[in-house]
Amino acid sequence: MTLRVGVIGGGQLARMMIVPALELGLEIKVLAEAHGSSAALAATQVGDYTKFETVAEFAKTVDVITFDHEHVPLEILRRLEAEGVSVQPPSRALAFAQNKLEMRRRLHELGLPMPVWAAVQTADELQEFLNANGGVCVLKTPIGGYDGKGVRIIRSASDAQDWLEPDALTRVGGTLLAEEKVSFVREVAQLSARTPSGDFATWPLVQTTQANGVCAEVVAPAPGANAETIAHAAEIARSVADGVGVAGVLAVEMFETPNGRLLINELAMRPHNSGHFSIEGSVTSQFEQHLRAVLNLPLGSTDARAAWSVMVNILGVDDRNDFVSGFEKVLGEHPVAKVHTYGKGARAGRKMGHVTVISDSLDFATTEANATAQALLQG
Amino acid sequence: MTLRVGVIGGGQLARMMIVPALELGLEIKVLAEAHGSSAALAATQVGDYTKFETVAEFAKTVDVITFDHEHVPLEILRRLEAEGVSVQPPSRALAFAQNKLEMRRRLHELGLPMPVWAAVQTADELQEFLNANGGVCVLKTPIGGYDGKGVRIIRSASDAQDWLEPDALTRVGGTLLAEEKVSFVREVAQLSARTPSGDFATWPLVQTTQANGVCAEVVAPAPGANAETIAHAAEIARSVADGVGVAGVLAVEMFETPNGRLLINELAMRPHNSGHFSIEGSVTSQFEQHLRAVLNLPLGSTDARAAWSVMVNILGVDDRNDFVSGFEKVLGEHPVAKVHTYGKGARAGRKMGHVTVISDSLDFATTEANATAQALLQG
Repeated sequence: MTLRVGVIGGGQLARMMIVPALELGLEIKVLAEAHGSSAALAATQVGDYTKFETVAEFAKTVDVITFDHEHVPLEILRRLEAEGVSVQPPSRALAFAQNKLEMRRRLHELGLPMPVWAAVQTADELQEFLNANGGVCVLKTPIGGYDGKGVRIIRSASDAQDWLEPDALTRVGGTLLAEEKVSFVREVAQLSARTPSGDFATWPLVQTTQANGVCAEVVAPAPGANAETIAHAAEIARSVADGVGVAGVLAVEMFETPNGRLLINELAMRPHNSGHFSIEGSVTSQFEQHLRAVLNLPLGSTDARAAWSVMVNILGVDDRNDFVSGFEKVLGEHPVAKVHTYGKGARAGRKMGHVTVISDSLDFATTEANATAQALLQG
Repeated sequence: MTLRVGVIGGGQLARMMIVPALELGLEIKVLAEAHGSSAALAATQVGDYTKFETVAEFAKTVDVITFDHEHVPLEILRRLEAEGVSVQPPSRALAFAQNKLEMRRRLHELGLPMPVWAAVQTADELQEFLNANGGVCVLKTPIGGYDGKGVRIIRSASDAQDWLEPDALTRVGGTLLAEEKVSFVREVAQLSARTPSGDFATWPLVQTTQANGVCAEVVAPAPGANAETIAHAAEIARSVADGVGVAGVLAVEMFETPNGRLLINELAMRPHNSGHFSIEGSVTSQFEQHLRAVLNLPLGSTDARAAWSVMVNILGVDDRNDFVSGFEKVLGEHPVAKVHTYGKGARAGRKMGHVTVISDSLDFATTEANATAQALLQG
């Protein structure tokens, strides 16, 4: 018997899914966008995931389809599902991941805590929202945004003039999403996994630090979080997972406010940067859990392997430093750091790897993970 | 920059090397014996490793050649080395891994502790050895043995009549190796790694339990081992590694005698079954360490991730149970066990996978690892 998982998209998330597939003995196949992708080792097909025939051909070779990203057109997934293909997470869940406005509407129906928000289509509507929310807001394109793209902080409707032009507006679904700019003490993320049968598991709530809209550092568990917040975060994740019908890993990114409230910022229905720590830090990594979940196998333990895990992203600095060139020096100076690189060509700002250190000491894990990342960046 | 490792042999050891290659961002290529091997995902070439042209062609595609097994003919490796190929471990080290008699001679030169042994070519010589050693001995073919094959316990020279016939004797190098049958309290193994530059690292001494000549269970660290024994085992490994010029992982299997002596039984110059625990149980697994070592990169920390690691092998029971079929039940009942299967077809007695549990409790790790293995065996 072979359990065959098909991953659409050849990025680092697909790459990191190859590892538990090898370990457990599952078969993994990747439909990559191009040759030489991060997940090239398992790429059995290279093609355009926006073409139904390409995806359908790939689907015939596996038992379940899952994703490295959330960009596969819903109509393609619905057609596959109609033909009996197991798509996990299913199209009805991904609809919310692909459209932030639909996501806000669904979370509202579920009664979950989030920033004040409104759908806006005109400068007048936007100005009205600004006036009602302290003269500042976070404006988002409902589709097509990620890692800080498609997000803008504005103080006047004129700041969004370009997005409100008819053509631009049509490209993002005809409506923009305006959200209250939340005063937060920090950002946290609740990672969880759900099987199609409804089994559910959470990892510890983590603290995330962003730099220029991109995840920079994750500390697991979130330092100083109180038991009530921890329990509440897990309840929120459970409500979201059940409420949108996720299968696989779900990341819920939240703001923690000065008065201790949690407000849902973003969702991701796949392994997520906030969960990379789990490769070393948890009995079951998010990548193994995702494979188990989409195959509807029992979930593994999410117990921690150490008191603290700290993960630091490595973003490309230029067109030359691929980080591997620095291994001789960096691995020698940092023998306990787990260095991950994704096999990508060097490019400034690109997510090219990460470093994780797990330890009984938060100080040590933080210092060592950051020092290792710094050493890699210096080449 | 890409660091490219080429592995000859497509077995489970090559398969498990793919994981750290993906994680660190090294390129790994495998020369497999056949299609559909355990390491098929990274198999860039399928061919006969006993043909120079095949191996030479493969060597051109990588920066260093290493091994899943020790069976590549030395003359092929020497020719590659003469042409400037980096072969790690080098042929001069592998000569001792491929011939147990040469190994005994070298260990004798190094003054290392081992069972009484002799090279025997005739029934008379063998009987003489038996008479001098209590009427019983372990007889080995110097080449071609593994996992209990090529090893026989005999009480009379006539028990080895078939091996002493001229043709049979020629096939194994013209001489047999007779060894004292050691009374031991247990078997232990010292895993270590050495770089071509001479950097060296050891993991904790482990206790190994064999069944029918095949490794069945490994407990790390070896329970109850005293500080002197632990230090001595590490010194032995260092002497062997330096003395034979190993690069990569070296496993030294030893007997522990009732009076606390350690006697070297076998050597392996590659990742070894006694080190599978390190995937979860150590900061740096033997597979990552092997890749670092053969590339002459700095070695990683071998610190333990938990007080105890227990690994239990899963051997094939018949032609049907591939173990993956039992995942639904087994993974559900054993959420903390790390189940590894090697993508091999079912066959009785075949090494098809292993289970590791790490814990602060030896009882828990032992019970849970064995219970998981039992559940898999029952299908």
